[in-house]
Amino acid sequence: MPAAAWHVSQWFNAASLPEPPSLENLRGRVILLHSFQMLCPGCGSHGIPQAEKVHRRLGSDDFAVIGLHTVFEHHDAMRPVSLEAFLYEYKVTHPVGVDVAVPGSPIPATMQAYGMRGNPTSILIDRAGYIRAHRMGAMDDLELGFMIGLLLSE
Amino acid sequence: MPAAAWHVSQWFNAASLPEPPSLENLRGRVILLHSFQMLCPGCGSHGIPQAEKVHRRLGSDDFAVIGLHTVFEHHDAMRPVSLEAFLYEYKVTHPVGVDVAVPGSPIPATMQAYGMRGNPTSILIDRAGYIRAHRMGAMDDLELGFMIGLLLSE
Amino acid sequence: MPAAAWHVSQWFNAASLPEPPSLENLRGRVILLHSFQMLCPGCGSHGIPQAEKVHRRLGSDDFAVIGLHTVFEHHDAMRPVSLEAFLYEYKVTHPVGVDVAVPGSPIPATMQAYGMRGNPTSILIDRAGYIRAHRMGAMDDLELGFMIGLLLSE
Amino acid sequence: MPAAAWHVSQWFNAASLPEPPSLENLRGRVILLHSFQMLCPGCGSHGIPQAEKVHRRLGSDDFAVIGLHTVFEHHDAMRPVSLEAFLYEYKVTHPVGVDVAVPGSPIPATMQAYGMRGNPTSILIDRAGYIRAHRMGAMDDLELGFMIGLLLSE
Repeated sequence: MPAAAWHVSQWFNAASLPEPPSLENLRGRVILLHSFQMLCPGCGSHGIPQAEKVHRRLGSDDFAVIGLHTVFEHHDAMRPVSLEAFLYEYKVTHPVGVDVAVPGSPIPATMQAYGMRGNPTSILIDRAGYIRAHRMGAMDDLELGFMIGLLLSE
Repeated sequence: MPAAAWHVSQWFNAASLPEPPSLENLRGRVILLHSFQMLCPGCGSHGIPQAEKVHRRLGSDDFAVIGLHTVFEHHDAMRPVSLEAFLYEYKVTHPVGVDVAVPGSPIPATMQAYGMRGNPTSILIDRAGYIRAHRMGAMDDLELGFMIGLLLSE
Repeated sequence: MPAAAWHVSQWFNAASLPEPPSLENLRGRVILLHSFQMLCPGCGSHGIPQAEKVHRRLGSDDFAVIGLHTVFEHHDAMRPVSLEAFLYEYKVTHPVGVDVAVPGSPIPATMQAYGMRGNPTSILIDRAGYIRAHRMGAMDDLELGFMIGLLLSE
Repeated sequence: MPAAAWHVSQWFNAASLPEPPSLENLRGRVILLHSFQMLCPGCGSHGIPQAEKVHRRLGSDDFAVIGLHTVFEHHDAMRPVSLEAFLYEYKVTHPVGVDVAVPGSPIPATMQAYGMRGNPTSILIDRAGYIRAHRMGAMDDLELGFMIGLLLSE
């Protein structure tokens, strides 16, 4: 299944990039799209540190880690001003986009487009832009590394 | 050293108490005063789960755990509306007070009064209202349990 | 219930003591009696490191940690020559006794006398020689520290 | 560098195989060769559980995990009778060979042939029988999974 476009209102950690991350300008790379909410305990203790570790160890011209802040509850508690401090304190250096709110729905646009059911969610997109894995909840490091290795060899 | 009074602008998890927690109405009990910021990684992964565990396992008519949200940086990111969602998501059930801001200073009032230098900080107060331990950073469960056991026997 | 006498065929880490540990010569101290088998995974990952941590942090003229190697299966695999290397590699410094074999039974003598049903088992003995806690399996550091603190104050 | 032949005096967990594991009869598969000593704490807490997890999750007709018991100290403490109980208690199900002793040296034969300097050591061998990675100490799950994924795609 081709990955849907990302709808992002604001990027963090992307100022040094020539343009904001998108499926189009990352085409040809394998992508780990990591969706989270800053006040989700499983994201803070596992998902976000894992995504950042993957970025620091495996990030390259061939592979990108992209975070997506998909707030679907407690919206007033997780505004961009809070997310910015969170990313600073948790030492997150990979690009993180804020998923665009949808009027009349608690679920933001990209979260809807991918059919995500909660956080954290890890999605692997291959060099051709197709979704090859979609997992909600904690993903084991061994399995995640293995799948990235397989996709990078294609 | 006698423990200083707490300056709190708002309490969470205290609605069922006859009155807001204070040194006066807790006199006679041993108290663990746990100071934190919601976006401090060491608080989220260690300090807050430890304080909540102590509350659930050892809380009694003889012993109380009191949380204190001492925001000294990123003030706009950690307003009470964000703290409320944080406490809900992290399943914190012990009383938590918001330390009162001091005009012209980033350091709130109770944090100043106790001379705390960062977060998390664990302070043990004995039945007579005296400070018996004051530790910044992660405190080992074994040592914390031991000190509570000793103080409760006095 | 008064603690039963220990039946030990050989001591490790006891050469510097004036005499081998016994309930009689430790009378007046609180004792943590920690029973284990060297090839039990829960002992290697939790029970033994915990007993050694308790010894290093809380051991004193008032409090002693005593290990007991209670082999009830795979007897040929856990002879004293193997235990000695195990204690060296796992950096165990508290005294450890080898529970005496009972002819015709796989269960050694002290294990029988205390009615232990498996490993690890943690037993707390008060200053007067009475058993005050008897737990099989992992014991939480917080709870263990708390109980030691209470018993030491008696 | 081509992987050296394995010198094994005894295999465990290999009874169901048509013949004892060797580089020759595994040619065409990627191999994780995991060297350990049963009384090495880092092996018990990390290396052996990791090797077994890799075996259970990724083991296939294309990929094999082979354990090697390379005893270079405390030889009397880690005889095959003790290793057998250890493998049973730690629920190790992948094949484990006992590295052959070399008269006059504490270092067994395969450990010498591979130039291993300690335990645990993880060695990745590609489909053609060449060593592609050789690491002493704890190896991160993410990195290990990634390297296996890359090698399997060749």
